[in-house]
Amino acid sequence: MKTAYVFAADGSEEVETLAPVDFLRRAGVSVQLIGLKSKNVELSHGVRLICDKELSDVEGGELPDLVALPGGLKGASEFHSSKKLEDFIRRQMDSGKLVSAICASPAHVLSKWGITAGKKWTCYPGCESAGDKLSPGRVVVDGNLITARGPGVSLEFALALVEALCGSKAAKDLAAGTLTVVAG
Amino acid sequence: MKTAYVFAADGSEEVETLAPVDFLRRAGVSVQLIGLKSKNVELSHGVRLICDKELSDVEGGELPDLVALPGGLKGASEFHSSKKLEDFIRRQMDSGKLVSAICASPAHVLSKWGITAGKKWTCYPGCESAGDKLSPGRVVVDGNLITARGPGVSLEFALALVEALCGSKAAKDLAAGTLTVVAG
Repeated sequence: MKTAYVFAADGSEEVETLAPVDFLRRAGVSVQLIGLKSKNVELSHGVRLICDKELSDVEGGELPDLVALPGGLKGASEFHSSKKLEDFIRRQMDSGKLVSAICASPAHVLSKWGITAGKKWTCYPGCESAGDKLSPGRVVVDGNLITARGPGVSLEFALALVEALCGSKAAKDLAAGTLTVVAG
Repeated sequence: MKTAYVFAADGSEEVETLAPVDFLRRAGVSVQLIGLKSKNVELSHGVRLICDKELSDVEGGELPDLVALPGGLKGASEFHSSKKLEDFIRRQMDSGKLVSAICASPAHVLSKWGITAGKKWTCYPGCESAGDKLSPGRVVVDGNLITARGPGVSLEFALALVEALCGSKAAKDLAAGTLTVVAG
């Protein structure tokens, strides 16, 4: 069975956090929702979640097949300031396993850690720094890096994660079953 | 300030529950996430939420400007079996205030309570009963009733709720700011 960790911090964006959990679980992936500092997180618009685990429970363990970092400005800032998360994501990226991020997190987390260097990627327009070059597209896949633009792209982002882990037929079936339209 | 209650039960669908909370709060609506039997709910794909209130806290009180019922087969069944919720939603409908539902809930909750009678509405294809007539469209608005088809329509459903409460400019601005595409 494929495995995924979706990280959440205080201030992570609601739909960007839960669309990947929802769609990956629908596709049969074993997903753990991982709180950055605690299992209890309050998302960017006040929704309170109880995560499955916290980062300290998994940081030294086996890597999952995919990790996902939702956006939300405050949540992305929390992610960026965590050395434990940086070490984990760097280990994931270096292993060739899948790394994904959406909205503020590709620019404010992955790019600032140098993890996007040499890769095609995107983020929420305006979150990029002066030196960042964004690729066109609502979702951009380059090797083991999957990035997407913002909350309105959450369902397409989640489908792209399913496609990367489970194949294009699984993603097409899920899009049809959930009535999700990919805007391209 | 406009007000909305989004209801959640064990088995409610994740994105259908939280996209309305997220987008309505972005638009400045005062949203309460209301657990049917408890503030603690476990959604259809295992995500655990702590709601703001539970139904018994608000059942006799002032009606909000809008109520939303997410789908999820188990969640819709929980909604349908609650006489307290039926009384609340019937009072909301009779008052002319906005009632909305998505996926399984228009058919398995509102139609079974007789609340869709004489209205145009839709639901997840196949959830309707033999006597139900569904209208075309991913989101259907008829007077104070707003219904939508399924999880992949959640963001468009949330935008339709914003439009109904806050006007078309607010909905257009929110679609642009969140990069949400309406499939039509």
